[in-house]
Amino acid sequence: MLETDPDVVASFAFDESRLTPRRSPWAVARPRDRAEVSACLRAAGVAHVPVFTRGAGSGLSGGANASDGALVVSTRRLDQILLIDEVDRIAVVQPGVVTGDLRRAVAAKGMFYPPDPGSVEMCTVGGNVATNAGGMCCLKYGVTGDFVLGIEAVLADGRTVRTGRRTIKGVAGYDLTHLFVGSEGTLGVITEITLRLLPAPGPSRAALATFSSLQSAGHAVTAVAAAGLDLSMLELMDRTVIRALEARSPMGFDDSVAAVLIAQSDAVGHDVVIEGFAQVCRGAGATEVATAVDEQESGVLLAARRMALPALEALGDWILDDVCVPKSQVVSLLTGIERLAVDAGVTVGVFGHAGDGNMHPTIIFDASDPTSTAAAHATFEAITALALELGGTVTGEHGIGRLKSRWLDRELDPVAMQLQRQVKDLLDPHGLLNPGVIFPESGSG
Amino acid sequence: MLETDPDVVASFAFDESRLTPRRSPWAVARPRDRAEVSACLRAAGVAHVPVFTRGAGSGLSGGANASDGALVVSTRRLDQILLIDEVDRIAVVQPGVVTGDLRRAVAAKGMFYPPDPGSVEMCTVGGNVATNAGGMCCLKYGVTGDFVLGIEAVLADGRTVRTGRRTIKGVAGYDLTHLFVGSEGTLGVITEITLRLLPAPGPSRAALATFSSLQSAGHAVTAVAAAGLDLSMLELMDRTVIRALEARSPMGFDDSVAAVLIAQSDAVGHDVVIEGFAQVCRGAGATEVATAVDEQESGVLLAARRMALPALEALGDWILDDVCVPKSQVVSLLTGIERLAVDAGVTVGVFGHAGDGNMHPTIIFDASDPTSTAAAHATFEAITALALELGGTVTGEHGIGRLKSRWLDRELDPVAMQLQRQVKDLLDPHGLLNPGVIFPESGSG
Repeated sequence: MLETDPDVVASFAFDESRLTPRRSPWAVARPRDRAEVSACLRAAGVAHVPVFTRGAGSGLSGGANASDGALVVSTRRLDQILLIDEVDRIAVVQPGVVTGDLRRAVAAKGMFYPPDPGSVEMCTVGGNVATNAGGMCCLKYGVTGDFVLGIEAVLADGRTVRTGRRTIKGVAGYDLTHLFVGSEGTLGVITEITLRLLPAPGPSRAALATFSSLQSAGHAVTAVAAAGLDLSMLELMDRTVIRALEARSPMGFDDSVAAVLIAQSDAVGHDVVIEGFAQVCRGAGATEVATAVDEQESGVLLAARRMALPALEALGDWILDDVCVPKSQVVSLLTGIERLAVDAGVTVGVFGHAGDGNMHPTIIFDASDPTSTAAAHATFEAITALALELGGTVTGEHGIGRLKSRWLDRELDPVAMQLQRQVKDLLDPHGLLNPGVIFPESGSG
Repeated sequence: MLETDPDVVASFAFDESRLTPRRSPWAVARPRDRAEVSACLRAAGVAHVPVFTRGAGSGLSGGANASDGALVVSTRRLDQILLIDEVDRIAVVQPGVVTGDLRRAVAAKGMFYPPDPGSVEMCTVGGNVATNAGGMCCLKYGVTGDFVLGIEAVLADGRTVRTGRRTIKGVAGYDLTHLFVGSEGTLGVITEITLRLLPAPGPSRAALATFSSLQSAGHAVTAVAAAGLDLSMLELMDRTVIRALEARSPMGFDDSVAAVLIAQSDAVGHDVVIEGFAQVCRGAGATEVATAVDEQESGVLLAARRMALPALEALGDWILDDVCVPKSQVVSLLTGIERLAVDAGVTVGVFGHAGDGNMHPTIIFDASDPTSTAAAHATFEAITALALELGGTVTGEHGIGRLKSRWLDRELDPVAMQLQRQVKDLLDPHGLLNPGVIFPESGSG
């Protein structure tokens, strides 16, 4: 069951994160059922070998970066959709199901599973649960955790626990389900997930507004929030991102465009909602507002937004942040990032889920140049600190991972921090599950 | 700060639940701020006195039934709405704020706080968080916990912890917020709650469908669920409830009506949705479907539903259950309850949140007659067992309290049960917070 071939193991050693440590784990296990997961954990427990659980490895925080000598448990062979029920509107899936596959399977039965992280065609539902992943849907529909009704997980000692239920409501005992959601593999290996589904939304309509300054785009975000429009999406891209997109495939934006907002509504009265969006944007100083004439044109706008990170990749090495601030602070965040970039002389491309205050400022640098790398790292730290200062969080949807483990006690109060560690010790007394993830590594690693 | 006058203390000794033990606590504290809460818990800890936290005392599971010699901590003087923010769409409140007051304060600023338990004009937000309370809104909007972004709580040792955040998204560390949601006062005393708000919904429309059998009403519930209609409410009342309502204030239902469904939609296209509801009901055998012509008529329908429990109270003593089953099992639940009632020769009035599968079968009995009381109790147990058999939960929204503490380990698997107790021991090592609530009392009590 274990693979120890160094080339195979190396391909399971780390995720898509940057500036995180990459090590050489000992072996990879690809269990096919819960019993095999349990066997892995029992054996690792006896041998005192750290276990790193891994979905698709598309994470951006180093949550799947294994340590030297560790065992990687890949959930990719646990890839069955066990149930999709139209009446109860639930799905039961194994963790290795690709999120996009689940969305399509659910849609084929006339239902909707909203979570749509940027890596939706690659990432797994288990990984999404582990990081409480979001995406563009969150403005209206919430994050992955909002759809998790129950889980089955194998604990560090190999025992299986079932939490939650198949009903929509329920309050029998403490909510252990959401203790596992966002726990980044540090409390157990999730082997089954029960998800709430929604009825399929009706047709949607998208629009794009251009702004001559990042500030005015930020003000539009705040005004849209205050207007209470029933938008299903509100995304932002700044000048750097737009130029990177233009370089890939010209869309006709000229240099005067400093930022764009892309909105979508899937409400029954979406035309009215989108017209409201256009009015608010014009009031906030939009230079132009273009409304998609049909679903196809809407799709083109969203496809452009989905290309933001791939387009930025062409500019050089990159490190992407995942800060989230209260909506009232979006302008301060955007102007602050602009100032930090100018001060440090680095390029920062800003895009993200503006409607949630969840932005992904992406710093472009040259990894072969220590000065550039240091400047990128310093700017990353400064942006993350700014989000905290503005009453936000250091991670909106990517997780703490290894990338931000030193930030956790800057965000949480000391008592909360102590409870966090106690919960970890309770479920993983020997510290063998994803050590160094969420909490900074104490030993050698 | 402590009141020990027996009459005063007696008025804080128990909640609205039936068939739960009522004892004589020692004293009542009504703290005005967090520091006073902390002082209570520190003192109680030193003296080894159990502490029972109490909101309005409107609970139906005995979660606020204090034990002999205990200290009751009432949150009623912690009744300030600290913030309502239109841009961030959040409210920050103390736990003693009455839910209806918060809903109105939020509505006055053009926003919406959905949770609406039956006791909405009496119960407190803190109590709602402690039991993860629901109401009629849940079908579309979810339960109280779905709106809780963060909390401040005083722990058993008097320290204060802050969990969560003010942003909509965030995944920095374990979700301790939802560990406190639904914990029924057993992990700490909640002193502040940060809540997510929604834009105010538009106008709504209600309709009422009558059925000549409970089964056909149940089939309509299933068909409505499968149709994916954007309803904001789907409530059921059976013949016993309708007759009790007729006795209070005649609404013109004749004896052929075995059940009614009341639906509401606040969607933009609510007329279309309600017409869809009417069609589905007719297809399921509804004898009549009446659509409200305006908001006022809609209000009358909902007011009737809100009077279900008060109307049943006039029939005798009562005990109300709070089971929740998957929507596909609603018919089986309803027919099963009917059968159990006939077999035991007891009257059961069934009403509840049919769209969520969350029903409140209410057994009418004569508390002065031991035989009647025993039959009521046996039927209550049989209904609760039936819900579990159907893949449901023993409590949808009222909490385990004392009423169902012997049911927790029938619902949860042994490993989950052990984790539940370990979480309790972690946060309340001396077992002084609401002992006997959620977990059966081990000692004398």
